[in-house]
Amino acid sequence: MSAATFEEMSASDFFYRNRDIAGLSNPSRSIFVAIREAVENSLDAAESEKIPPDIYVRLSFEAEATQDTQVYKLRVEDNGCGIQPRFIPSAFGQVLYGSKYKLKQARGTFGLGGKMAVLYGQITTHQPVSVTSSTGQEKIYSFKLMIDIQRNKPIILDRKVLINKDNWHGTIIEFTLEGDYLRAMPKIIEYFKQTAMVNPYANLTFVDPKGRLYKFTRATTAMPDPPKETMPHPYGVDVELLQRLILITECTTMTGFLRQHFHRVGEVTATKFLDFAKIQANKNPKKLTHEEIVRLMQNLKKYKDFLPPDASCLSPLGEELLKAGVMKELNPEYLVVHQRKPSTYEGHPFIVEMAMAYGGNVPKRDNFVIYRFANKIPLLYDEASDVAYRVISNMNWKRYKVSPEMPIAIVVHICSTKVPYKTVGKEFISDRPEVRREEANALREVARQIQHFLARKEHVHNEKKRLSIFSKYLPKIAEFSTTLAGETRKPDIEKLLKSVQKYGTEEE
Amino acid sequence: MSAATFEEMSASDFFYRNRDIAGLSNPSRSIFVAIREAVENSLDAAESEKIPPDIYVRLSFEAEATQDTQVYKLRVEDNGCGIQPRFIPSAFGQVLYGSKYKLKQARGTFGLGGKMAVLYGQITTHQPVSVTSSTGQEKIYSFKLMIDIQRNKPIILDRKVLINKDNWHGTIIEFTLEGDYLRAMPKIIEYFKQTAMVNPYANLTFVDPKGRLYKFTRATTAMPDPPKETMPHPYGVDVELLQRLILITECTTMTGFLRQHFHRVGEVTATKFLDFAKIQANKNPKKLTHEEIVRLMQNLKKYKDFLPPDASCLSPLGEELLKAGVMKELNPEYLVVHQRKPSTYEGHPFIVEMAMAYGGNVPKRDNFVIYRFANKIPLLYDEASDVAYRVISNMNWKRYKVSPEMPIAIVVHICSTKVPYKTVGKEFISDRPEVRREEANALREVARQIQHFLARKEHVHNEKKRLSIFSKYLPKIAEFSTTLAGETRKPDIEKLLKSVQKYGTEEE
Repeated sequence: MSAATFEEMSASDFFYRNRDIAGLSNPSRSIFVAIREAVENSLDAAESEKIPPDIYVRLSFEAEATQDTQVYKLRVEDNGCGIQPRFIPSAFGQVLYGSKYKLKQARGTFGLGGKMAVLYGQITTHQPVSVTSSTGQEKIYSFKLMIDIQRNKPIILDRKVLINKDNWHGTIIEFTLEGDYLRAMPKIIEYFKQTAMVNPYANLTFVDPKGRLYKFTRATTAMPDPPKETMPHPYGVDVELLQRLILITECTTMTGFLRQHFHRVGEVTATKFLDFAKIQANKNPKKLTHEEIVRLMQNLKKYKDFLPPDASCLSPLGEELLKAGVMKELNPEYLVVHQRKPSTYEGHPFIVEMAMAYGGNVPKRDNFVIYRFANKIPLLYDEASDVAYRVISNMNWKRYKVSPEMPIAIVVHICSTKVPYKTVGKEFISDRPEVRREEANALREVARQIQHFLARKEHVHNEKKRLSIFSKYLPKIAEFSTTLAGETRKPDIEKLLKSVQKYGTEEE
Repeated sequence: MSAATFEEMSASDFFYRNRDIAGLSNPSRSIFVAIREAVENSLDAAESEKIPPDIYVRLSFEAEATQDTQVYKLRVEDNGCGIQPRFIPSAFGQVLYGSKYKLKQARGTFGLGGKMAVLYGQITTHQPVSVTSSTGQEKIYSFKLMIDIQRNKPIILDRKVLINKDNWHGTIIEFTLEGDYLRAMPKIIEYFKQTAMVNPYANLTFVDPKGRLYKFTRATTAMPDPPKETMPHPYGVDVELLQRLILITECTTMTGFLRQHFHRVGEVTATKFLDFAKIQANKNPKKLTHEEIVRLMQNLKKYKDFLPPDASCLSPLGEELLKAGVMKELNPEYLVVHQRKPSTYEGHPFIVEMAMAYGGNVPKRDNFVIYRFANKIPLLYDEASDVAYRVISNMNWKRYKVSPEMPIAIVVHICSTKVPYKTVGKEFISDRPEVRREEANALREVARQIQHFLARKEHVHNEKKRLSIFSKYLPKIAEFSTTLAGETRKPDIEKLLKSVQKYGTEEE
């Protein structure tokens, strides 16, 4: 009998062979993903230092490739924090290498997207990526790189150092890739539009292959506080994490260990918990046995009295910024926004923000227009698979006298240190009970307010109708009565009209 | 300004941190995934050698963990081809290491699932996995392993060699994991049921934690031919693949290179193509410039006269086996099956098989019951995201006089050297136009046949009704006429009844 033979594969090779799962499934989608990943890295790089982002994206036509695809050059410039030269090669030429492996809110979370875009460019056009960056110090560094896919290592083809006269900081990347811009265009423009909506403090410029300029100017320079790094919450740990912490800890007691490495665990909580878990408070964590580590983990999940994660590590939009963003893009007749209190799933804090807009530039369709965002990035694909879609579909809309044919847009934003994406391509949020509950509650709140608005709107409408009847017939009646009475001077009916007018018509 | 700091991450670490994307999102799902991955590896190991699979799965309760989860031990035994001892540690203790990186049809495709299940067991219970295997030679090898997640390497804790007296071949794995069997149970039983449906040559035994025995006995020992390994088709290549082939090739001319390394390219096609692409036929492939490689790739995609991939590398079920499987599980009143001709997407061959069953044990619901399979594995999650669901929903059923309330089950099977899964967790097939088209055509074909059946069924029903009216009133009329005529002997109405009976009532 012949047995199977085996081989090893690098992470880069794995994602190269399975690029569908990173969203690079066809020439149109790939152009979209490349632009999106670059823009998101740029936004993160600016926001981490509270710099109002200025991002310039240019996609230019290079050559025809096949019947449906062309070769394009993509250039993205930002004014972010920049990258230190020693990190540049791996940051763009090595899959699973990045700055995003910390417990904090960021747009990118997989350390994958940017490299996958570069990799896709390489396998379709065989050209290197060029990266120029400075952290604002004296020098600007410029690299030409390719990826050794089988070994998952960057290949440095060229390296230049320039003098940074103006203390410029930021990053410029440029690479070529094959794609189908014509088919991708609607999604790309929509992407910029929606990104501008939830990042109203960013300047976004996009020049497309036809030379058309799309400019989204910031509505404010007020920036939310950058997200902070945080420690793991006791509810979210597993054995592997415990072992890693035990390996690096300098604490010599369990009380110290818990206080030092876990989110919201103080002296009192640590002591009470160790009592609950029947682990000695002064035991050295490095001396825990395998069984004790497992018991520690199980008890961390069981113990009821840990404080919930606090959300200071999260950077939600806030109701004001959300309002400003939606007003700018949709200019609705009526708008309500609502931010939920922080909640958690598996020890990860998250916040749901929701907006509901009526009328104005909201497009009329057979169904609600849904805008989905996660950590301030728009999600444009696979709407029907997203938990938000299910929450909206399952809502009892009749109760709120709202119907899907109305010109209503619903905006959902979830921010978290770990957004529960279902796919590496970040297309949609998985159906976690905690997320579903928060979204449903937020939706009920905005729906209630829309219901009030609609009721008042209807009332005003009826009132206007009633008044218009009065004001149509009263003058006739007055005229007729005057003639009948043989008078020549008509009575003043203005007073009379005012008296039947109830309230509210001017409110509009 | 402080710039970002960077770190590297192993593939194992990546999937550990993002285990949601491999389907391990909660304790119930994780139990399901662990069983599924083990069963699929076992089926592949038996099928590759055309051995009718005997697979024994036992899940046993070990201890309570938290409120909702328990610790279980999972043991899976198979009679497959076995694994050579030198490959065992990495095959179970290293992510992205496997036998599945070849261009051939297999259940597992990511080289990920089995290790992820073991990894999940380790991070929840801190116990090693034990693997015992033999390829049927003199010895049986037994290992105890853990995974070094940060380095993505196996740690061998124990290794034993035993004498293989009975020339046993197969693999036994056993590990503990935390999970929620009660909630996972319905899906797990359904998984075995559906696996039995499309693998009617397999014996499957499952003993659950309550000691209940589920046995699915094979209906046939006829096995489909094992899938063959194949070469890449010219339409599916990219620059990276070309470079890898150039690196390993021993051919010194382009004609030889194309014939040697590509699917369905012979002397004539190679010569014609090189003429089309304006590349010299006797050029040494190792001397191609970067630009020539890119041009070669673009032309491989452009050239219209390559033969389509042949499907000898695929192992579909075939209409007979599909029929047998569905009959065994659903025992329907009427069943049609249809296999489409091979088709391709991006150079990957695939075949769609479809069955439609009416009545019998088909459950009655508000909508069709859909069974989805890919390379003979059942897909049980995220139905609404699957291309098959969309094809079925978009069908004009009225045309076929079929309504979703009828007791109708639809079975879709797609087999391919590369199933276009949308997620690493293999939950659903992405919406590729080629796949959509094939599924729609297959569906129309079976729907047409069901329509004929339903028409005949209705006709027979009406006929029966008509006859029953005759047979009810004719005797009365006969009796009445007899009395009226003063006769005592009633006329023979059997002949009369036969004459009004048209056809078909006995067919039932």
